Amino acid sequence: MNSPGCQQANCSETLKEGMGLTPEGRRESRVCTVRVPINIALVKYWGKRDQTQNIPLNDSLSLTINSLHARTTLRVNYEIGTDSVKINGKSQTVTGSRYQRVFEEVRRWERKRKAGEVAEHPVSIQFEITSETNFPVSAGLASSAAGFAAIAECLQKIFGFTDSQKSQLARLGSGSAIRSIFGGLVRWRRGTQPNYEDSIAESFPSTHWPSLRALILVVDEGRKEYSSTDGMQRTVETSTLLERRIECCDVNIDKICAAFSNRDFSAMADMIMRDSNNFHAVCMDTSPPLMYLNDVSRTIIRLVHVYNEKNGSTVIAYTFDAGPNATLYLEEDTVQDFLDFATKQLRFAESAQTEVEEILGHKLDESVNNGALAQILQVIYSQVGGGPQLLSLH
Amino acid sequence: MNSPGCQQANCSETLKEGMGLTPEGRRESRVCTVRVPINIALVKYWGKRDQTQNIPLNDSLSLTINSLHARTTLRVNYEIGTDSVKINGKSQTVTGSRYQRVFEEVRRWERKRKAGEVAEHPVSIQFEITSETNFPVSAGLASSAAGFAAIAECLQKIFGFTDSQKSQLARLGSGSAIRSIFGGLVRWRRGTQPNYEDSIAESFPSTHWPSLRALILVVDEGRKEYSSTDGMQRTVETSTLLERRIECCDVNIDKICAAFSNRDFSAMADMIMRDSNNFHAVCMDTSPPLMYLNDVSRTIIRLVHVYNEKNGSTVIAYTFDAGPNATLYLEEDTVQDFLDFATKQLRFAESAQTEVEEILGHKLDESVNNGALAQILQVIYSQVGGGPQLLSLH
Repeated sequence: MNSPGCQQANCSETLKEGMGLTPEGRRESRVCTVRVPINIALVKYWGKRDQTQNIPLNDSLSLTINSLHARTTLRVNYEIGTDSVKINGKSQTVTGSRYQRVFEEVRRWERKRKAGEVAEHPVSIQFEITSETNFPVSAGLASSAAGFAAIAECLQKIFGFTDSQKSQLARLGSGSAIRSIFGGLVRWRRGTQPNYEDSIAESFPSTHWPSLRALILVVDEGRKEYSSTDGMQRTVETSTLLERRIECCDVNIDKICAAFSNRDFSAMADMIMRDSNNFHAVCMDTSPPLMYLNDVSRTIIRLVHVYNEKNGSTVIAYTFDAGPNATLYLEEDTVQDFLDFATKQLRFAESAQTEVEEILGHKLDESVNNGALAQILQVIYSQVGGGPQLLSLH
Repeated sequence: MNSPGCQQANCSETLKEGMGLTPEGRRESRVCTVRVPINIALVKYWGKRDQTQNIPLNDSLSLTINSLHARTTLRVNYEIGTDSVKINGKSQTVTGSRYQRVFEEVRRWERKRKAGEVAEHPVSIQFEITSETNFPVSAGLASSAAGFAAIAECLQKIFGFTDSQKSQLARLGSGSAIRSIFGGLVRWRRGTQPNYEDSIAESFPSTHWPSLRALILVVDEGRKEYSSTDGMQRTVETSTLLERRIECCDVNIDKICAAFSNRDFSAMADMIMRDSNNFHAVCMDTSPPLMYLNDVSRTIIRLVHVYNEKNGSTVIAYTFDAGPNATLYLEEDTVQDFLDFATKQLRFAESAQTEVEEILGHKLDESVNNGALAQILQVIYSQVGGGPQLLSLH
């Protein structure tokens, strides 16, 4: 298990305000680099009560996936200039974007803070972001969650924001990013206060259950058919079942947290699968329907149930976000047997087969299915529960 | 539109009791042959409050599909013997089956009736059924609905049962069979009385809307992965959303009936598609999930939405029962244009292409997709709303 460098709330590495002026009297630029894992929800977030602020209708719960992360550098220049964002080498449009929302909020806070001081220097702040993910973006692997959590993390380090402010910045960028600002099992409370101050993340340490693993089967590396933002809004507007789903989320989260606390894998897995199916049910109950799963996703769902049945107990759970890729949760000692089973039932691309062999530490036998009509394009095996890591700050 | 021969309630062709004794004083055998169309629900039946009596949790609504029918002959011999059922040439197990439930109910009624008369002859009744469907059974095309409605129809003709008794016999065989005992738009009321006497079918004449058509795209001719009976019970036991679905069914049925009454295709179509998606949503919300749709089904769903969007109004509706085959409802004047559109978007098997050419009355151009990876195996075009037809009775 990775030992997250700066996972907890009161990180002392924030630079002190007022340090470092240039010979011209301007404040020196600050640069912060962090690595932040994505998270995959066990109880999904779907539907907002405030679209601008990304305030959810229901609480959600997730585990971070240590191996999939964004490595993000934020440079803050105290001068007037154009903000820039580059993701995996590609410049992004900032104007009107979610990045701009975050930058503007920081400028607003800084203006407000400065107003209470002797304002020697106007609040001119320019942001430059460079982010690399070690997996394809927008393929339903929650890349924006890691990316915006990383930005929020950097902003906290540079400006000394509180955890509550960090939550708010991450959430402004992407709702589910709030669940990547901590490690462990993270619950995002929807909050009930009018100012949304209590719509924050809470974490349960993952070190409690070190044998827990995630196995991601990448089915489709393409972009999503509909963005989560558009999709969930359509569900809110048209589904007759969403309200009932929302009523049940808190109870399900409590059950999963209790099972996590008792390390009762079977009870936890059952609730994880039920929530995934319940989430895709309300997607289907949307008009027109949101159909994120495909035939390969469904084959994996059946496979997991067959495997659990064969085992006589639930030792593996699937969950699917707004896309066809499967995230499987299981304990370390189930991995080998399950992969042996899965490689006989599914067709793996050659590279995915190599990934499986690396996980197992031995070659698969030749009867294993692979070929042109591969169903599984990539296999990612990961520890879970890691949090943000500060790589550098100056 | 077919003119159903014996569709309405008070059919006068029932043979009078006591006619025809053999020289030995035994009552002569009776033979009845009927043709009964399947029905495809616009608001689906899913979940029972009484499993033996097939009493549903919600009202449902359907249209019969004239072109797909069971042609069923029932022979009643007044002697002791073994009942037999042959479907499409294949002998069926009767002991412990749904057929036996129906036969036993008839014997019980006859015993009860005879008890009030001078019982010259003991109630020895033997049943022989031969039924042929003009489509593959158990492929999600509601074959049992047509089959059991046909049996109930024959039993009514031979024994002079009331419509309420006919409803009951059809329902004992297969819940949805109750919706094939009439023509037109048929509502099956779940009933509220403890003895289930008011769980009956009601019909709205289809002659009201003669231009209405169904187009069935057969995606998979195989047997269903899970039977409806097992599937719906699993949903009742595990879905948290089913209750909410059931609360909405009556309102949706009222909306469809109102739209049908006003011949408002667009309003009707919208509700039909919503119910289909809502039904598959509760199937997904079942544990383990019931996944009846496949990638081809979903391609058809998207295609219909794209076509309606392109048209600027909703001129075609899809609905999917517990299987991957699509039933499309549309008006006659939409068929040609939609098929032209669909044959360019989907891959049709050669035979399905021939079926489309027969519907259109001209050859498709060569750019049309077909081939080994056909998505659409068969295309059935039909008028809707026909009822049972009596072919012979003696």
